[in-house]
Amino acid sequence: MRRAIAASAGALGVSSPNPAVGAVILDADGAVVGVGHTQPRGQAHAEVMALRDAGDRARGGTAVVTLEPCNHTGRTGPCAQALIEAGISAVHYAVADPNPSAAGGAQTLLAAGVDVTGGVLADDARRGPLRYWLHRIAHDRPFVTAKVAATLDGRIAAPDGTSQWITGPEAREHAHRQRARLDAIVVGTGTVLADDPSLTARRADGSLREHQPARVVLGRRDLPADARLRDGTAPLVHVRSHDPHDVLAALPDALHVLVEGGPAIIGAFLAAGLVDEVQAYLAPTILGAGSAAVDDRSVATLADAHRFRRIHTEPLGDDLLLVLESAR
Amino acid sequence: MRRAIAASAGALGVSSPNPAVGAVILDADGAVVGVGHTQPRGQAHAEVMALRDAGDRARGGTAVVTLEPCNHTGRTGPCAQALIEAGISAVHYAVADPNPSAAGGAQTLLAAGVDVTGGVLADDARRGPLRYWLHRIAHDRPFVTAKVAATLDGRIAAPDGTSQWITGPEAREHAHRQRARLDAIVVGTGTVLADDPSLTARRADGSLREHQPARVVLGRRDLPADARLRDGTAPLVHVRSHDPHDVLAALPDALHVLVEGGPAIIGAFLAAGLVDEVQAYLAPTILGAGSAAVDDRSVATLADAHRFRRIHTEPLGDDLLLVLESAR
Ligand SMILES: NC(=O)c1ccc[n+]([C@@H]2O[C@H](COP(=O)([O-])OP(=O)(O)OC[C@H]3O[C@@H](n4cnc5c(N)ncnc54)[C@H](OP(=O)(O)O)[C@@H]3O)[C@@H](O)[C@H]2O)c1
Ligand SMILES: NC(=O)c1ccc[n+]([C@@H]2O[C@H](COP(=O)([O-])OP(=O)(O)OC[C@H]3O[C@@H](n4cnc5c(N)ncnc54)[C@H](OP(=O)(O)O)[C@@H]3O)[C@@H](O)[C@H]2O)c1
Repeated sequence: MRRAIAASAGALGVSSPNPAVGAVILDADGAVVGVGHTQPRGQAHAEVMALRDAGDRARGGTAVVTLEPCNHTGRTGPCAQALIEAGISAVHYAVADPNPSAAGGAQTLLAAGVDVTGGVLADDARRGPLRYWLHRIAHDRPFVTAKVAATLDGRIAAPDGTSQWITGPEAREHAHRQRARLDAIVVGTGTVLADDPSLTARRADGSLREHQPARVVLGRRDLPADARLRDGTAPLVHVRSHDPHDVLAALPDALHVLVEGGPAIIGAFLAAGLVDEVQAYLAPTILGAGSAAVDDRSVATLADAHRFRRIHTEPLGDDLLLVLESAR
Repeated sequence: MRRAIAASAGALGVSSPNPAVGAVILDADGAVVGVGHTQPRGQAHAEVMALRDAGDRARGGTAVVTLEPCNHTGRTGPCAQALIEAGISAVHYAVADPNPSAAGGAQTLLAAGVDVTGGVLADDARRGPLRYWLHRIAHDRPFVTAKVAATLDGRIAAPDGTSQWITGPEAREHAHRQRARLDAIVVGTGTVLADDPSLTARRADGSLREHQPARVVLGRRDLPADARLRDGTAPLVHVRSHDPHDVLAALPDALHVLVEGGPAIIGAFLAAGLVDEVQAYLAPTILGAGSAAVDDRSVATLADAHRFRRIHTEPLGDDLLLVLESAR
């Protein structure tokens, strides 16, 4: 199952609106003979990819899948049927499908005489790549991560506006690797006008990564005709509003959205209660002057503070990455 | 030696201006028979404390000391002589005494036929409790730690001034434990007038710890006649200036000074290049409004940022403690 969870990460950003599922096929002797993850919309699901990888060796074997195999016939055939046809004799899955139209795969498999075990490492799978899709189903909106890259005293630019680079190359590399697993990145018009960012997912050598997230701009001002965001590398969505809910409504298929800034946009998402996770890249520097990382005018007193739970701390070169999840 | 270094921590704050030294006596069979650390000024040094603890069992034994035993006859007799008289046959020490008036203890011991080994775990000892005294000798001023207790976005108070509590009980307990090992705590007049702090080192139940650091206030305004800092629990020094150098000059015996704030005072110490270490207690909250933790008007551009090196990260309840040392 750990192998299947790891494989599912390959689907992040690319499988949306379908879940990032991973599957592993073991032959009758228990040897791994196939691995797969969900493909882009309309293409094969994880089980089918793993079965293709395994070929004939799947017969009499076991399928290990992070999500209960689907039962519906959408654009792709139902996975439960594919597993039965491949002669799989046992299926282990982690998380039951909460989606009524797809659920029932376990029933279908049992009815066909397949051994079925659900709930295997379910908590690990729920916290893994499946998390974003499960969140969408539970809350009818994507999972929102707010990113802050700041000095230890919470500044993102000096008084003269200089801001490159506050964090080091390892933190930037980490952020670019993450971009390639997202559905969309959100910034404000202020950031577009100030920095003309490209918001692409790049490798250290500057080349584009395979998957590019959509670029979303929140704010009423026009975007310059020659803005880098208009270069066609990835879809551009301009939401001419001040309401973060409008951003999420404009992304009906998105599972995981990153809010990159600037301060007013992060503040607006926080004030709206729409931040599920914070990723803070903290540099070992103190500015003592310049722009604050977050600007939320709705906060008046300490009890209004947005509260999170620290779930991960990771050194990235000289910087420190803190990941926190909403304490709501 | 590790045991001696650990013992030396008991002298922090209380032995100044003398170094926080630790000593362990092993009997002729290698069993620990005595442990000691430097006492307050004019009282016994670590070796003498450990010898007293060991009594007759020291004869023919080994002394393990974090600093080369002293050779001078100050208010206390020379430790080298005390070790010889106790019949110690071998001395292991970590750091050679850089102080010309006290050095030569190793020579004296050798001349008396004692086996002497220097440099044992010297790096560990230098980074341990001896660090503050070594810093004073090298730089002719105390080691300065700046403390920041802030939200993840670097705020120390909400717009309405509320600031209690940003960090949790574990972080406060940690800070109080540290206060008991300091020579002095520095705050600005602004903090005294706003918060009327006591700056005492207390236990979780509110009772006073054994050692209390001096309280130092920087700023020109008068302190209220009924300020808690005037309660006599610890010495009060009011430095009516805006120059952090004046604070250090007013503390000729201090080895380790903590700058607690507020923002203007931390900024002034940073701008003067007088911060050797930063202790940041970061809460898992975002305010998005309110006072910034550090206010340094001397910073104009990113290249002016004060740079540090992260040396320690420690969860304290919900909060995270980051310790950074100057990158100069
Ligand atoms: N270090 C980092 O992680 C990071 C990341 C991104 C940006 N930045 C920095 O942030 C700076 C830009 O800051 P900024 O505050 O001007 O940019 P911003 O937050 O990107 O954009 C602010 C603009 O967004 C629009 N907006 C949309 N919804 C809003 C709302 N609910 N409340 C207020 N405004 C809303 C407004 O423009 P309209 O008038 O167009 O509606 C507003 O002026 C740049 O210097 C950039 O370098 C840093
Ligand atoms: N969370 C924390 O870690 C923490 C710690 C301490 C304080 N605080 C908060 O900080 C707030 C107080 O902030 P504050 O900025 O008013 O207080 P502050 O930094 O303690 O004091 C500022 C005052 O210090 C004097 N001063 C001395 N040297 C100076 C210099 N080089 N530059 C500028 N001023 C100098 C000035 O007063 P004169 O006119 O008297 O010269 C100035 O008004 C309080 O709300 C307190 O709760 C938080």
